[in-house]
Amino acid sequence: MGETVGIAVVGTGDWGANLVRNFAALPGSRLAALCDTDPARLARAAAQAPGARTTTRLEEIAAAPDVRGVVVAASAIQHHPIAKALLEAGKDVYVEKPLALTVGDAEELVRLARERDRILMVGHLLLYHPGVRHLKEMVRRGDLGDILYIYSQRVNLGKVRRDENALWSFAPHDLSVILHLLEMEPVDVAARGAAFLQGEVEDVVFLHLRFADGRMAHVHVSWLDPHKLRKFTVVGRQKMVVFDDMEASEKIRVYDKGVDRAGQIVSYGDALSIRSGDILIPKISLQEPLRLECQHFVECVRDHKAPLTDGADGLRVVRVLAAAQRSLELGGAPVALAAETAAAR
Amino acid sequence: MGETVGIAVVGTGDWGANLVRNFAALPGSRLAALCDTDPARLARAAAQAPGARTTTRLEEIAAAPDVRGVVVAASAIQHHPIAKALLEAGKDVYVEKPLALTVGDAEELVRLARERDRILMVGHLLLYHPGVRHLKEMVRRGDLGDILYIYSQRVNLGKVRRDENALWSFAPHDLSVILHLLEMEPVDVAARGAAFLQGEVEDVVFLHLRFADGRMAHVHVSWLDPHKLRKFTVVGRQKMVVFDDMEASEKIRVYDKGVDRAGQIVSYGDALSIRSGDILIPKISLQEPLRLECQHFVECVRDHKAPLTDGADGLRVVRVLAAAQRSLELGGAPVALAAETAAAR
Amino acid sequence: MGETVGIAVVGTGDWGANLVRNFAALPGSRLAALCDTDPARLARAAAQAPGARTTTRLEEIAAAPDVRGVVVAASAIQHHPIAKALLEAGKDVYVEKPLALTVGDAEELVRLARERDRILMVGHLLLYHPGVRHLKEMVRRGDLGDILYIYSQRVNLGKVRRDENALWSFAPHDLSVILHLLEMEPVDVAARGAAFLQGEVEDVVFLHLRFADGRMAHVHVSWLDPHKLRKFTVVGRQKMVVFDDMEASEKIRVYDKGVDRAGQIVSYGDALSIRSGDILIPKISLQEPLRLECQHFVECVRDHKAPLTDGADGLRVVRVLAAAQRSLELGGAPVALAAETAAAR
Amino acid sequence: MGETVGIAVVGTGDWGANLVRNFAALPGSRLAALCDTDPARLARAAAQAPGARTTTRLEEIAAAPDVRGVVVAASAIQHHPIAKALLEAGKDVYVEKPLALTVGDAEELVRLARERDRILMVGHLLLYHPGVRHLKEMVRRGDLGDILYIYSQRVNLGKVRRDENALWSFAPHDLSVILHLLEMEPVDVAARGAAFLQGEVEDVVFLHLRFADGRMAHVHVSWLDPHKLRKFTVVGRQKMVVFDDMEASEKIRVYDKGVDRAGQIVSYGDALSIRSGDILIPKISLQEPLRLECQHFVECVRDHKAPLTDGADGLRVVRVLAAAQRSLELGGAPVALAAETAAAR
Repeated sequence: MGETVGIAVVGTGDWGANLVRNFAALPGSRLAALCDTDPARLARAAAQAPGARTTTRLEEIAAAPDVRGVVVAASAIQHHPIAKALLEAGKDVYVEKPLALTVGDAEELVRLARERDRILMVGHLLLYHPGVRHLKEMVRRGDLGDILYIYSQRVNLGKVRRDENALWSFAPHDLSVILHLLEMEPVDVAARGAAFLQGEVEDVVFLHLRFADGRMAHVHVSWLDPHKLRKFTVVGRQKMVVFDDMEASEKIRVYDKGVDRAGQIVSYGDALSIRSGDILIPKISLQEPLRLECQHFVECVRDHKAPLTDGADGLRVVRVLAAAQRSLELGGAPVALAAETAAAR
Repeated sequence: MGETVGIAVVGTGDWGANLVRNFAALPGSRLAALCDTDPARLARAAAQAPGARTTTRLEEIAAAPDVRGVVVAASAIQHHPIAKALLEAGKDVYVEKPLALTVGDAEELVRLARERDRILMVGHLLLYHPGVRHLKEMVRRGDLGDILYIYSQRVNLGKVRRDENALWSFAPHDLSVILHLLEMEPVDVAARGAAFLQGEVEDVVFLHLRFADGRMAHVHVSWLDPHKLRKFTVVGRQKMVVFDDMEASEKIRVYDKGVDRAGQIVSYGDALSIRSGDILIPKISLQEPLRLECQHFVECVRDHKAPLTDGADGLRVVRVLAAAQRSLELGGAPVALAAETAAAR
Repeated sequence: MGETVGIAVVGTGDWGANLVRNFAALPGSRLAALCDTDPARLARAAAQAPGARTTTRLEEIAAAPDVRGVVVAASAIQHHPIAKALLEAGKDVYVEKPLALTVGDAEELVRLARERDRILMVGHLLLYHPGVRHLKEMVRRGDLGDILYIYSQRVNLGKVRRDENALWSFAPHDLSVILHLLEMEPVDVAARGAAFLQGEVEDVVFLHLRFADGRMAHVHVSWLDPHKLRKFTVVGRQKMVVFDDMEASEKIRVYDKGVDRAGQIVSYGDALSIRSGDILIPKISLQEPLRLECQHFVECVRDHKAPLTDGADGLRVVRVLAAAQRSLELGGAPVALAAETAAAR
Repeated sequence: MGETVGIAVVGTGDWGANLVRNFAALPGSRLAALCDTDPARLARAAAQAPGARTTTRLEEIAAAPDVRGVVVAASAIQHHPIAKALLEAGKDVYVEKPLALTVGDAEELVRLARERDRILMVGHLLLYHPGVRHLKEMVRRGDLGDILYIYSQRVNLGKVRRDENALWSFAPHDLSVILHLLEMEPVDVAARGAAFLQGEVEDVVFLHLRFADGRMAHVHVSWLDPHKLRKFTVVGRQKMVVFDDMEASEKIRVYDKGVDRAGQIVSYGDALSIRSGDILIPKISLQEPLRLECQHFVECVRDHKAPLTDGADGLRVVRVLAAAQRSLELGGAPVALAAETAAAR
């Protein structure tokens, strides 16, 4: 199994506590230190990780010789400064999503990690989900035929946040999966939403991505909804797949549905016939995505290998989020990504 | 029960045949005549309505003294010229949705009906659905509190059309319900979609409506989807309602869910508490909406009263469709409805 | 297509009206006559079958030279005398389920049909259901491995009957499918139930069948239940199948689930490992079972071939029903079928 | 909150480990000691309860002055001897279900607890479930009208046991709820099942209970089934309720369904009308039943008060299980409980 990797967690709030619990139980790693500016929160987290020392000062983590990898689960606005400091101190870093709040900040982290030859991983959790892995494998093998479009829904009546809108809070999950499946960045993005509960913070956002080859994707995020949905629909020319993460065990459905072009095309439409066949619900491993993600970080640190969700992946998602945010502010006018990208280089 | 109303049906294709079947069995009306340019189709329809005479010439219907009300179920492009001719001939007219393909045409029909004091009804079927009536009644009584937003999904793997895109084919249903519930026209509309199967005909469209008071609505229509969805979600400040027409009997769910503002608002967010209570599935009548709609037309003709879905209603929906179509062509830029309306007057 | 077969329907109540509608529209047959003792009911049925003459006298049907096949949909107590008269008159007969109310009566009909070389078909509708056909084909091919047991549920809040209990009214459907799949008659039957709403008529019955080779089946029927279930679960050693007739399109689910015996069996239990794999929802034809059944009768009459659900099939089901009824009356003591069968020969 | 109660857990296998985890985190109690004959299992459990000492000798627990309450989660055959020894040593005891394997043994424990004035609690977990509490409260208030019958399903493809059949392993849950709701013991019990996988151990059992006042209950348990069901259906004269523990949040559905007797009863049947109204899904607390049960034990020990699920409750369930087992062995003949009860007194 190789050596034991020393890990620290910075930011031990709700989500950070999950990370603490996972790293505390992970073979191959040792949770050496926890860091939080709030001593009470820090104490609560420490109860779950008996062996780890605690500190309110990031400098201690940055300087700790027994810490090789650091997990950053502070609030989003802190992702960039904390990750920057840690990379500069020579640490391998795993930043929760979103990687940063601006394209410039995300690019700086990517550049820093490259220059220092450090690992920069972003917490795009769903890419470690066995269901998404299964889906990606189907796409890779061409089982679905060409993918035409993807849409996703991430809605429920949930915690209303003050510091992040529903776009930045929820959509990184959807966008990371969509970009992963399509292996392409969108040409432009249009987003509309509304802030019903608080002044400036959108509760509900509809987001549309257009790709250069005519494909498209749509994302609906909301914390003001009677349903609880965590669902992707992937429409291919040969098959269609639904990944529904709220299903206890039947997470993926493969529909043998499509539209065939029958024989010689004389007139459009007449030549199209609908195919509706069997549905397959493949058995998917029930391993917990967060545990797989933590394990992956430890392996990447130990073997100094590039993570599945590296800084470039995090940057791509931030680029879409930033364009979407601008579109939101413009009232829904499509915003080209090219401009973003150009500006960022 | 009053006199028997003489009815004719013009256009006896798939949907027209449903109308023929309904009027043939409807007490209080007499299906006097059928008209279609295709004699074979006409013969098939006539088999279902033994007492009705048939003709391929619209003029015969227009001139028939025993016909007071005419149902127009020809292809959408024919709605305007046929309805115009019939109104000018003094008939009461029920036009299938959409009322017309341009705002100007729709406005002309509305004006004609007003000038001639004729009934102009549009086939916004869902407004006759007992589920929608129940929903409207809840909204009217204020059970939901302020409505914040509505979204609807009308998707399945279905017949690919050549002459209409998914927007004009499906969205009139959604838009008629949304405008009926909100009792307001949107300020602007943004639409994005794609034509995957045929050159210029969009198979999938995402449509977003913004209203002057900050409310919004979203419509997703597609005939290229693994699901079969016919569903509205209405989010109110006090309660949320889902109307799912694919459910056999549990068509409406009322969620006692909302967000309360707790006490004095010191800081945003902290003051918000989530309320998640009981769910009620009210018993809804299972009467067939199409039968109720046909009955309504007969009553309106007999009593010379304004239909629930009158020409003005049809025009409002066409106005949104036209703006959405322009937005689609502009690649998703929001299109203001004011301009449309101004131009149309 | 061959000659046109003259058909009569005797008994035109609720279910009889369905049969009239089907035979009236069936190619290859001619609905020549309708018979019912209630003139009003007869008139209503006649409206659906313009070409058929009507009579209240069974003798007319028995004597009609243009009637070859007769469908008996009178109340269950009439099945035996009517079918007997018709067979004696040389007609081919299709009797609704149950074939008769006693084993002796059912045996007499079977014997009569054999002696007169007439067709005797019983209305075990589900055996014409494409879902059941698919299931039977899977069983025949050995896809499931040995079938271990079957259970079925046929419950809803429905019409409370006075003349039949839930056992005789509902269970023929379940029993016909179970015997068809297992190709074996049970050794004994135990039944318990209760008559909550009326004196002597059981509303809810639980029925258990034991087979000579150790297999078993269980049937739950009720018209006093909040659910609406029409469902079979078939547990095989290799796979398990659920046929759920309330599903709109996903009627069959094949579970790749089973218990394997791993290697050499040293101690029981340890050697058993659970296998839980993919689920397949095969595409099933949506043809209407009743139409297929009517078509089958016409073909059997025309070609003088034995029906899928012949008199012997009807007798087997009556034998189980009679034993179950006796068990009900005994308070649930198992009743052997052997005795029934011996007595009946 | 009062004093801290010293607790020990005897038997630290799969289920015992859950109990250890719960008591280790429970305010008001102190998990003082763990006991198991298997040192490896004991060590694994100890890792979850840092403060507790361990022993392989029951005598140490019985003699420990810092232990007031003992939880017995050893295998079922050990329940009686262990609980007996602990009661005799003056401990308060919480025995997992079933309380014992014979009526005589269960009665002895009840008698012992009474004589020594010790608490004897049995682990009928579901009676601590907020859903069952809600259901019981509805029944108590008379919301359902008279309860007519109850049926339950507890099936899935699960662990095949060698030492207990599906009846003794699963049915205590169902029976404890049924007896709790009906507040009455059955007159007789009939059970049929089969042992498909191993010689003598039934995998699937159907169990029917008859009560003196004509009510009945039915239980279906199996570990050889494609579904995963944990479900009760309670049919009352006024309303019907389904408690489905596999639902994530909508655990209870109240159906306003029933059969009314309309006016003067002239003839049966005609006078019955079906009522099908709204469905209500009440909000149910999501507190974990096991935690509530552990908490209850601690409170009962601390305050010396009788538990909700006391020895008498455990005995009633064992009485039904024993009669059911005898019926199973007799091939399904109903077995009267009276005899059992008489013998036991």
